[in-house]
Amino acid sequence: MPRYKLTIEYDGAPFAGWQLQAQDTTVQGVLERAVAAINGGPSIVQGAGRTDAGVHAMAQVAHVDLAKPWDTFVLRNALNAHVRPHPVSVLEAEEVPEDFHARFSATKRHYLYRILNRRSPPALDKGKVWWLPMELDSDAMHEAAQALTGKHDFTTFRAAQCQAQSPVKTLDRLDVARYGEEIEIHSEARSFLHNQVRSIVGSLKLVGEGKWRPRDLKAALEARDRARCGPVAPPDGLYLVKVGY
Amino acid sequence: MPRYKLTIEYDGAPFAGWQLQAQDTTVQGVLERAVAAINGGPSIVQGAGRTDAGVHAMAQVAHVDLAKPWDTFVLRNALNAHVRPHPVSVLEAEEVPEDFHARFSATKRHYLYRILNRRSPPALDKGKVWWLPMELDSDAMHEAAQALTGKHDFTTFRAAQCQAQSPVKTLDRLDVARYGEEIEIHSEARSFLHNQVRSIVGSLKLVGEGKWRPRDLKAALEARDRARCGPVAPPDGLYLVKVGY
Repeated sequence: MPRYKLTIEYDGAPFAGWQLQAQDTTVQGVLERAVAAINGGPSIVQGAGRTDAGVHAMAQVAHVDLAKPWDTFVLRNALNAHVRPHPVSVLEAEEVPEDFHARFSATKRHYLYRILNRRSPPALDKGKVWWLPMELDSDAMHEAAQALTGKHDFTTFRAAQCQAQSPVKTLDRLDVARYGEEIEIHSEARSFLHNQVRSIVGSLKLVGEGKWRPRDLKAALEARDRARCGPVAPPDGLYLVKVGY
Repeated sequence: MPRYKLTIEYDGAPFAGWQLQAQDTTVQGVLERAVAAINGGPSIVQGAGRTDAGVHAMAQVAHVDLAKPWDTFVLRNALNAHVRPHPVSVLEAEEVPEDFHARFSATKRHYLYRILNRRSPPALDKGKVWWLPMELDSDAMHEAAQALTGKHDFTTFRAAQCQAQSPVKTLDRLDVARYGEEIEIHSEARSFLHNQVRSIVGSLKLVGEGKWRPRDLKAALEARDRARCGPVAPPDGLYLVKVGY
């Protein structure tokens, strides 16, 4: 049973998230149907991370075991033919050792959060950004964000339904930068808690609006209290950019 | 009757083009309904260019005469409230003299054509690019394109239904450049013939594939024969970027 690593782009908007569900259309479900069609039988497509409904991926990673060896170009093209018409695209397929595990072998995840900060709503990027019409102070957001890098108890920025054993995570990067009308927030860590990026972005928005000072974000972190988190940012602006191994 | 200049972004995918139609949803139709709702009566929204079905705009320009004067910020926001849920966004409204005409006062139009040149289909940019999986030689495309700049009879690159009086146009810019997996074609002129950009891009694709040499493009232009045009490129990749006055 050769194992293949798949790198996958998707538009999260029409999906009920990554993870397989009985009723709703999910990215994993679409990929597993494509695999079943070419493999002569079902096989689990194990993703590096379970993105929520509406969250996008530029390069999600998954692994799958197939019944027979495949040329990787042919495998990629065959899967892409079978995921149509869903907005899912297999960018690359590679054969990997059988001890490679998309989720447990990952050593780094990189997320991007895009905010469209202008008075007019998005037309071309509808569903792909968080639209915030009031001007945000991206410098203050970046300054505040630095208090969250490093190893911390992120209980404040963790969804109630998070299944991680510990709320302690090490955030390697949390950069906020403005490019014209767009604010990009790049975040990197070995792993994240459920809703951690969207919880942090929702709180950074309060800093950008001037409702919180940078020290209020630090105080929210140190409180280790979910009630101190700002309103969670919507999934539209979130992208899984890269998974490192 | 004060006149207002509107700058408009839209995703062309769900529309039967810019121009008002009795049956199908068009960008002009959506804007004219919004105008009627806030103006207490109908008024024509005159665009700088009639983009075809599926063609996008980063900054289409139109003018409209309203019954009473408006604060331009309030006008923009009121129109945006009334175009929902269509992917149309008024970026700016400005009061202009009554001799300003969005179409006839324009002195420059700038179009961008985006090609996604990679093996895997687009997921995030589905409907926003022309997907061409075979590797294109963008340098050869750029070289060939230079034969089309300047003043020429563009009969070869003109749709049969084009209503312009003359096929002679002056192309100020036709640049082809690769940015990783994407090829961008920027084209500027005072005005364009119907389907001119998509006709040119369809022919440049043949150069990029090596089916045409750069001199074949020049020969096609000089033939002044519609039958010598390559297959017209799809609307998905085309954006009206800017209109100059």
